[in-house]
Amino acid sequence: MKKIINRPEDFVNEMLEGIYAAHPGSVKQVGEDPRCLVSAHKQEGKVGIATGGGSGHLPLFLGYVGKGMLDGCSIGDVFQSPSAEQMLAVTREINSGAGVLYIYGNYNGDIFNFDMAAEMADFEEGIRVESVVVGEDVASGAPVKAGEKNTRRGVAGIFFVYKCAGAAAAAGLSLDEVKRVALKACDNVRTMGVALTPCIVPRVGRPGFEIGEDEMEIGMGIHGETGIRRGKLLPADKIVDEMLSPILADLPFVAGDQVAVLINGLGATPLEEQYVIYRRVAQVLKQKGIEVYHTYVGEYATSMEMAGASISLLRLDEELKQYISAPADTPFFKQFAL
Amino acid sequence: MKKIINRPEDFVNEMLEGIYAAHPGSVKQVGEDPRCLVSAHKQEGKVGIATGGGSGHLPLFLGYVGKGMLDGCSIGDVFQSPSAEQMLAVTREINSGAGVLYIYGNYNGDIFNFDMAAEMADFEEGIRVESVVVGEDVASGAPVKAGEKNTRRGVAGIFFVYKCAGAAAAAGLSLDEVKRVALKACDNVRTMGVALTPCIVPRVGRPGFEIGEDEMEIGMGIHGETGIRRGKLLPADKIVDEMLSPILADLPFVAGDQVAVLINGLGATPLEEQYVIYRRVAQVLKQKGIEVYHTYVGEYATSMEMAGASISLLRLDEELKQYISAPADTPFFKQFAL
Repeated sequence: MKKIINRPEDFVNEMLEGIYAAHPGSVKQVGEDPRCLVSAHKQEGKVGIATGGGSGHLPLFLGYVGKGMLDGCSIGDVFQSPSAEQMLAVTREINSGAGVLYIYGNYNGDIFNFDMAAEMADFEEGIRVESVVVGEDVASGAPVKAGEKNTRRGVAGIFFVYKCAGAAAAAGLSLDEVKRVALKACDNVRTMGVALTPCIVPRVGRPGFEIGEDEMEIGMGIHGETGIRRGKLLPADKIVDEMLSPILADLPFVAGDQVAVLINGLGATPLEEQYVIYRRVAQVLKQKGIEVYHTYVGEYATSMEMAGASISLLRLDEELKQYISAPADTPFFKQFAL
Repeated sequence: MKKIINRPEDFVNEMLEGIYAAHPGSVKQVGEDPRCLVSAHKQEGKVGIATGGGSGHLPLFLGYVGKGMLDGCSIGDVFQSPSAEQMLAVTREINSGAGVLYIYGNYNGDIFNFDMAAEMADFEEGIRVESVVVGEDVASGAPVKAGEKNTRRGVAGIFFVYKCAGAAAAAGLSLDEVKRVALKACDNVRTMGVALTPCIVPRVGRPGFEIGEDEMEIGMGIHGETGIRRGKLLPADKIVDEMLSPILADLPFVAGDQVAVLINGLGATPLEEQYVIYRRVAQVLKQKGIEVYHTYVGEYATSMEMAGASISLLRLDEELKQYISAPADTPFFKQFAL
């Protein structure tokens, strides 16, 4: 295990200590628990937005706490959900009377704890909480049908949900309206990934899975969940085509649509390669008559030292375009108004 | 070689094609050569700042072209200098009458070509060009003495030189004054790195050097240049102490100093580990009575998929603090006014 860490059991708390030390004007911890993180800029009367999840995915989840995005985040061990009590502590801190929206990925541990936290917030604190669960990885389940449970994993596309809901909350919308915007973003975002190497959970000390020196896995999840096809590493354009095709077919994205694109590096894949990926994505979208409104390229949701990337597309209408274009200022994501 | 690329010989141009496609409102190419990149926002009457260097270090070098930073960049093959003609094409494009400042790293190929480009700009175009060569890696040579040649490599600390000179030029200072600010930043910045794994130049197809499964090299350069010590991988705090100690002794940084800190990931090292590194840096600086004014953590100067990190410290006076605090908006680096 080749990591720059101290004791594996101290990894998460030492990472958090570094984050609080590096960004004292942006984020702060709630009380004595470093795993409950909130924005240093509380805005009275605004709907609070909280997220949470396991460590090992920076800048997910806590990296998006700040102006124009989220208000708080609870942090678990590597790939583990934070507790309902930690979620509740964050909820209490960020509520300023307008209620709180939870936005998090579609994982059982997180669902269980966020549901419990929402109940406690209502019952014990009288805080109204609504929840939006993001699951947009087309490799991980059938298309969602109205009224049925979504079985898809939430991956990098949650960034778009944070961005739209965060901008809506910053604009002063009510809890119901912010939730509606978040759900609209969920309905219009699709993702697919590819992994080339595994990552190592520090306390485990060995790779979570094995993959051959010349292999890739299309559709693998950010915790190493099984994808849709393992095979020989292909040229970049073929990999992109294989990921993009099911994304486009799923919504479907069609000629005349306007989209925001996120090319996300999983951790060890150089930015150069992410741009080689985007080059092909832009070519294909142009061929299909789909217009790109704005593009994000970089590490937005990682798996520590995993090599690989994901592609997320968000179909835009005028409302979502407005929220994508709004400014944001967090430790990990800064954007001037587009 | 496990990379998401097409033909290795197309790597650089396809990466650039992706960059132009992703950031059409921010950067554009000069004429027919994608390796000559300039800002889409030319500001008349402003001193132009150009940089350049080999590919494989994103966001170096071209990633810092934009508002409040640089105006243009010429790009070479992986780890190769661009040509003097390419530098000249960029110079011609960004000159708006106030002259041009070259800021680049201390590598022979770059020095040779930038010197030739400066002569051609003066002789053929009547454009006044000044140059600042950055070499701040304390692992790579003796401390610089007045009047002697600097043998040190330029690494991630060049970001601070870009930031200060870019803000000075944006504030309307003259070429001589912008150069003075850039030199002041050079005089006050020091860096040291550590590498855990090699990287692979696509056209070569194999690692540039070998390093054992349990080894690290303190002081290694971003092209794999030999460092000051190779040995067993140590805990993070010990690695930081071994890097920070020669940095602090070199300037020297002393109690009462105010600094900006850059923790830079070399490519494959997770952001989590970079924060574990910063945690220790903050502890040591506090012990030494050195005050941190602002901290940057992330990938600012990489070697593709190399694992490792570097620490850069910039000693601030009131003037440099003002330039560090100024806003900037480039494809890779955005900062609201501090």
